Amino acid sequence: MTTYDKLMAHARETAALGQIAGRLGWDQETMMPCGAARQRGAEMAAIEAVLHARRSDPQVGDWLETAEAIDEQGQAQLREIRRAYERATKVPADLAKRIAQVTSEAQGKWAAARAAEDVAAFLPVLQEVVALKREEGAALADGGDLYDAMLRDYEPGTTAAQIADIFDAMRPRLVDLRAAALDRPVPAGVSGTFDEAAQMRLSQELATTFGYDLSRGRVDKAVHPFSSGSGDDVRITTRTSATDPFNCFYSTIHEVGHAAYEQGIDATYALTPLGQGVSMGVHESQSRIYENQIGRSRAFTGWLFGRMRDVFGDFGINDADAFYAAVNRVDNGYIRTEADEVQYNLHIMLRFDLERALMAGDLLVTDLEAAWNDRFLADFGYAVDTPSNGCLQDVHWSVGLFGYFPTYALGNVYAGCLYQALRKAVPDLETQLAKGVTSGATGWLRDTVQQHGGLLLPRDLIRRAGGIEPTETPLLDYLEEKFSALYGL
Amino acid sequence: MTTYDKLMAHARETAALGQIAGRLGWDQETMMPCGAARQRGAEMAAIEAVLHARRSDPQVGDWLETAEAIDEQGQAQLREIRRAYERATKVPADLAKRIAQVTSEAQGKWAAARAAEDVAAFLPVLQEVVALKREEGAALADGGDLYDAMLRDYEPGTTAAQIADIFDAMRPRLVDLRAAALDRPVPAGVSGTFDEAAQMRLSQELATTFGYDLSRGRVDKAVHPFSSGSGDDVRITTRTSATDPFNCFYSTIHEVGHAAYEQGIDATYALTPLGQGVSMGVHESQSRIYENQIGRSRAFTGWLFGRMRDVFGDFGINDADAFYAAVNRVDNGYIRTEADEVQYNLHIMLRFDLERALMAGDLLVTDLEAAWNDRFLADFGYAVDTPSNGCLQDVHWSVGLFGYFPTYALGNVYAGCLYQALRKAVPDLETQLAKGVTSGATGWLRDTVQQHGGLLLPRDLIRRAGGIEPTETPLLDYLEEKFSALYGL
Repeated sequence: MTTYDKLMAHARETAALGQIAGRLGWDQETMMPCGAARQRGAEMAAIEAVLHARRSDPQVGDWLETAEAIDEQGQAQLREIRRAYERATKVPADLAKRIAQVTSEAQGKWAAARAAEDVAAFLPVLQEVVALKREEGAALADGGDLYDAMLRDYEPGTTAAQIADIFDAMRPRLVDLRAAALDRPVPAGVSGTFDEAAQMRLSQELATTFGYDLSRGRVDKAVHPFSSGSGDDVRITTRTSATDPFNCFYSTIHEVGHAAYEQGIDATYALTPLGQGVSMGVHESQSRIYENQIGRSRAFTGWLFGRMRDVFGDFGINDADAFYAAVNRVDNGYIRTEADEVQYNLHIMLRFDLERALMAGDLLVTDLEAAWNDRFLADFGYAVDTPSNGCLQDVHWSVGLFGYFPTYALGNVYAGCLYQALRKAVPDLETQLAKGVTSGATGWLRDTVQQHGGLLLPRDLIRRAGGIEPTETPLLDYLEEKFSALYGL
Repeated sequence: MTTYDKLMAHARETAALGQIAGRLGWDQETMMPCGAARQRGAEMAAIEAVLHARRSDPQVGDWLETAEAIDEQGQAQLREIRRAYERATKVPADLAKRIAQVTSEAQGKWAAARAAEDVAAFLPVLQEVVALKREEGAALADGGDLYDAMLRDYEPGTTAAQIADIFDAMRPRLVDLRAAALDRPVPAGVSGTFDEAAQMRLSQELATTFGYDLSRGRVDKAVHPFSSGSGDDVRITTRTSATDPFNCFYSTIHEVGHAAYEQGIDATYALTPLGQGVSMGVHESQSRIYENQIGRSRAFTGWLFGRMRDVFGDFGINDADAFYAAVNRVDNGYIRTEADEVQYNLHIMLRFDLERALMAGDLLVTDLEAAWNDRFLADFGYAVDTPSNGCLQDVHWSVGLFGYFPTYALGNVYAGCLYQALRKAVPDLETQLAKGVTSGATGWLRDTVQQHGGLLLPRDLIRRAGGIEPTETPLLDYLEEKFSALYGL
């Protein structure tokens, strides 16, 4: 065995154990009895300790010094193994343990503070989290930019400056588009109640329609929809609401986008470092293009309108155009996770700028609420009413997830680039979607993006697939064209 | 930290990882997509490798040499850690690997041979399994009895000679009882079809009735019912058949017995070597006493008859006595898993004698079928018709599970001892059971058996709980009394 082979054998076993940890996470959100939470905490800690020990194994460090790859794939494997090794070894064990403890505690305090609308109750522990994450960032950065070092966990090969360039260019056009759309009457939505079992059945149908392979996956309910797992075991969850079937269907399509990425990866990468999506941003590009550019298109919604009429009968919307308008409503709202295609990115940019300032030490935790509220007023045109609609709405910072937020909007930017290329590559795309056929779109995405798994770094992958340097222009052009037509702007 | 504390910290993490492996097994039988089987194989191999490395860690061996326990509980913890360490280190790695490979292959060949009714097709690989297991037994036995060494995996502290004494005393009385009952008319069974969703709902009710804590467990369907997990996450499965509701209900009660044992263990033992049932035999004593002595009693079946009438209406049985006879039918049959209380033990004794002879080298694999058929004719009074009804019916030997079969009947023997003591301890037991109240019985079992987890070795545990040396007499007295009354013998 060569050193490379030894490293890969070790990495394969680590990848298999990583899949197990992921499956436990799925179980926790879908199947686990409520009384098992504390025991599960100990079980998760045990498998995480095993994973950490494997990733930081000095043997891996030694092997990495001499391992040689014979091709592009091998080099990418080594790149990912090295990234995991450095991530695991650069942060002192004491600091990692302290972060785990404080973020665990912070989540509880965040939930309580949000419920009580009491920002002050959350600030002390958030202050601790910020201080610890800055310390961790410094350890990871090795003298380089602290926030860039954090980004490496979620979007390797991309810098905060690159993201800031894109976001800064997006903001004025999105603020204008939002204001213009909100100036027009809000389209009618659905009315009545929708059988939840029927929603789940139509969800399964939608998943299959979008190419999700149910022989290597399954659909369950969870409070917060997610996709989980890689290779031959990629599971999704969705949720139902008796009065809001779109929440169910578009959650399903979104998660199918994530799952299709994982299911579409070259089978030879299975249970290796390349056998999973390369970044959060690219992952989100797949979920978003399935959900929005395809799933909320005029063509596809025409087909979905028919299926919903078949299943639910009359539901207060009488033609396909009104249905299209209803699934693309732009309306005032405070909550990121409920935002439409236009306003979603404004939410993300707000968080990106604030968390970058927190990490740089330019914004104090005590000034966070005021900074949030000022920025929200500037971009959305009205004031935050309560903290749970403002700076207490997301769990992310309490968990220590700094560097994660921007990948959501980056995913939309990537989706814009990909969709532009897809329309050229599949000229009859709309004709297909109008019949509920997504194979032209999903096949192209599999070939250009999904199959590569972790082979190419995000920006390289999008450049190759989209044919252009990753840029916000296609997304903004798409949004302006779509919503100008919808709102008669 | 003392050496004992270090050993325990290590053991706790191993126990947590063991729970994870168990949960994966549950997932595989209940939730896993069919296309994920190969990947799951790699995942299971990875976690098993981690567990084996931990159990055989030389550090554990060093600690065991000097660790000192301060009390009975600590001594039992060390006993269990030592047993796992010796199990993991005495068998050479090459041999363990070869056994894993050959038994994996043998299961496939067994299934094919059973489907084709072709014993000869199974014999070569069974021969390999037997040879490898004998080699493993020799490694484990350290010059002692080979089969005793195998028993240690399933029934620590019990010898084959002790089991043989019990079984030899049981056989003639059971053969006679069987023949006498079969000489009488077979009672009528249920007729019609039974809604399977309603069966699952009544199963949940039965589980709760028997004290199963659903906040720390759940009930799902599986092809072969089982119980899985320890502590705060103990899950059971059952199955439904439209024409045979008893299969569902008694599978549920049986698995609830296993689960109640795990759920009833002293919480301070959770995620330690003592935090699980001490042996297969004691486990089976709990599942069997729930299922048979309690669940198939005249008193409890009277209550169940009422509940089934409530749920299913008329199902061809018109009074509680006929119902009691129907759930206790003794009928000719070849299959162990479908056998009644009387005949079940005859099935086990047959397998025990044959597998002991195989391991001792006194029976050749090529003579197995003839030996099986001769013994079956002698004990059951009629001849095996096809191999799938004879020596090909069980998966156990193909998996290399030698030493496992006797624990089924040992469980019945233990259940007999416990039931005799329970009736004395809870004088109004029948009055309670007639109202569907099991708390008197299950509370006594929790106090005398379940809470102790792995603290006491099986025979010591049964002796303390039952107040007598473990013996077949109470079981045989109970069976003769019950079936004599039922069949007018």
